[in-house]
Amino acid sequence: MSILVVGSLAYDTIETPWGKMDDALGGSALYFSAAASHFSPVNVVGVVGSDFDSSKISFLKKRKVNFDGLYVESGDTFRWGGRYHDDLNKRDTLFTYLNVFERFQPKIPMHYRKSEYVFLANIDPELQLQVLDQIDHPKLIVLDTMNFWISGKRRILEEVIKRCDILIVNDQEARELTNKPNLIKAARLLTEKGPQTIIVKKGEHGCMMFHNDNYFFAPAYPLEKVIDPTGAGDSFAGGFLGYVAKQNKLDHDTLKKGVVYGSVIASFNVENFSFAQLEKLTVEEINQRIEKFRQLTAF
Amino acid sequence: MSILVVGSLAYDTIETPWGKMDDALGGSALYFSAAASHFSPVNVVGVVGSDFDSSKISFLKKRKVNFDGLYVESGDTFRWGGRYHDDLNKRDTLFTYLNVFERFQPKIPMHYRKSEYVFLANIDPELQLQVLDQIDHPKLIVLDTMNFWISGKRRILEEVIKRCDILIVNDQEARELTNKPNLIKAARLLTEKGPQTIIVKKGEHGCMMFHNDNYFFAPAYPLEKVIDPTGAGDSFAGGFLGYVAKQNKLDHDTLKKGVVYGSVIASFNVENFSFAQLEKLTVEEINQRIEKFRQLTAF
Repeated sequence: MSILVVGSLAYDTIETPWGKMDDALGGSALYFSAAASHFSPVNVVGVVGSDFDSSKISFLKKRKVNFDGLYVESGDTFRWGGRYHDDLNKRDTLFTYLNVFERFQPKIPMHYRKSEYVFLANIDPELQLQVLDQIDHPKLIVLDTMNFWISGKRRILEEVIKRCDILIVNDQEARELTNKPNLIKAARLLTEKGPQTIIVKKGEHGCMMFHNDNYFFAPAYPLEKVIDPTGAGDSFAGGFLGYVAKQNKLDHDTLKKGVVYGSVIASFNVENFSFAQLEKLTVEEINQRIEKFRQLTAF
Repeated sequence: MSILVVGSLAYDTIETPWGKMDDALGGSALYFSAAASHFSPVNVVGVVGSDFDSSKISFLKKRKVNFDGLYVESGDTFRWGGRYHDDLNKRDTLFTYLNVFERFQPKIPMHYRKSEYVFLANIDPELQLQVLDQIDHPKLIVLDTMNFWISGKRRILEEVIKRCDILIVNDQEARELTNKPNLIKAARLLTEKGPQTIIVKKGEHGCMMFHNDNYFFAPAYPLEKVIDPTGAGDSFAGGFLGYVAKQNKLDHDTLKKGVVYGSVIASFNVENFSFAQLEKLTVEEINQRIEKFRQLTAF
C-alpha cells in the first residue's frame, strides 16, 4: 500500500568529530522515503527552491517514490546546519534557514489522497492540520513532532495528536508532553490524548512501543562507530511505516516487526553521512541485520 | 552451587517523593543475598555493629543464606542516607557513616573458600583484593564497583578488574573507565582489561551484556510506579549470579537468562521500600514475570 509523506527536503551542513559535509542532501521527507521505499511506494509532498538539484533524488524515483507533490518555488531550499560532539546523543543547531519552506502550504495532489498510510513528518503542526483536512480516511496516520512545537504551538499540536493513530516522539518529548518523568507512565498517558499507539525513541537506548496495553522494547542496533545521526528518526519512521504498509496489517505483531525494521534501517543510516548508506542499501542487507537483531534480545 | 558474597550490611535512611524510611535494612550483601537465595545457597561475609537486630535477617537464614562470615563488632552498623527525586534515575547521598565498616578486614571462613561463585559487591577495591587473595580458584568471579573508586582508587581497582571474570558497572562508570562515550565500544574495551564478560546497567533503559563478541540487551521491566530504587543493582546481581550458579554453566545462553532473571528480581525490589518485596517474593512470581518479560522483546 502506498504512503503519503509530508515533510522537508533540505540541504544540511553537518559537523561531526569525524568530518564535515556542506549542503548535503537531507530533510525528513527524503530520509523517510529512502527508508520506506524498500517496502512500499511513497508519495512525497514538499517544497524546494530553484537551487535544488533534482538529479540527487533520482535514486528514490527508481524505487517508486513519487514526487508529483514536490513544489519548486523561486528562492533557496531549506537549509539546516548542525554540530555533533563526541557524545552523539547531543547536537547543537548552528543555523536554520527556512527559505522557501517559510511560505509552504502543503497541497495534496488528488491522486495522492487515496494513500491509506500517512506520515506527518516533523513540521509546523498548523501545516500538519492542513494536510489532515485534505485527506480522506486513511487506515493509519503516523505523527512525528519535536520539542520546538511542544513548547511553541502546544494547543494546535494537541489537536493534531488527537487525530493521529500513532505518535512518534523521543523520551524528552514524551516527558514534556505529559509532565511525567516515568516513561512507562508517560507512554500510557499519551494514548489518552488520542493515538492508540505510542513509540518513544531513546537514541542509543533504542525505542519502546506502547500498544493495546502492551509494551515492546527494541534496542538500538549496536554500532561501535556512528558517523552521522542526522535522519535517524525519519529513517526509523520510514522503515517502520514502510514495513507496516507492505503487510497492510495493524496487529501488535506487525507493529513490533515494524519497530525492528525501523531500528535496523536507522542503524544503517547513521553509519555514514547524508544518504551514502541508504542509497545503496539492499533488502538482503536489511534482512541479514534483522536476523542479527533477533539474537540481541532472544533468550 | 554456593555463592560467596562480600559486601555491606547497613541501615538506610531513604527519602523519596512517596515517603520516607529511617534505619531500613539495607546493604549490598543483603540485597544480593535476598535475590540470589531464590536459586542458590549464599555465604555472606560482612560486618555489623552491636546495634544490629539479627532477627531482621531471619528470612534470609530460612533461604539457605549462611551468616557464619558475619562479624559483629562493638560500635554502630554502617549507615547510609539518600534522597530520590521525581526522576528516580538521580539520587543525592545525604550522609555516609562507615562506623564498624571503617575497620573492616574481610576474613573468609575456611568452609566458605570452596564457593565456586564469588560476588565482590561494591566496596573498597583494597578489600576486594584481600578477598581474592584468600580464595582458591572459583569458577566465576563477578565484580561490582562505583564511580567513587574509579576516581579515587583507580590503580588498585584496575588490578581487581584484571582478576575478575564478569564486571558489572553502570553506563557512566563504563564511560569513565574507558573514556569512550559510545557504550558499545566501551563494553568491548572493558574486556581488554581482563573480564571476558561486561554487564552495563542503564537504569530505566535496562542493561546490556557483552560476551564472546556478542551483545545482549534486556529492557528494564516496565513499571509505572517505582517506589525505592535502593538495592536495584545488587538485587540484579543476585538474580543474575543466583541463576547462573544454579545452572552451573557459563555459556552465552545461560548468561543471557541470568541477565533476565536479574532484571526481573530488580524490578520486584524497586516496587517497595527496603526488603518489603524481596522478603515475600516467590519463585512462582519470578517465573511469571520472566514469561511476561519474553513478550517485551520477542518479535
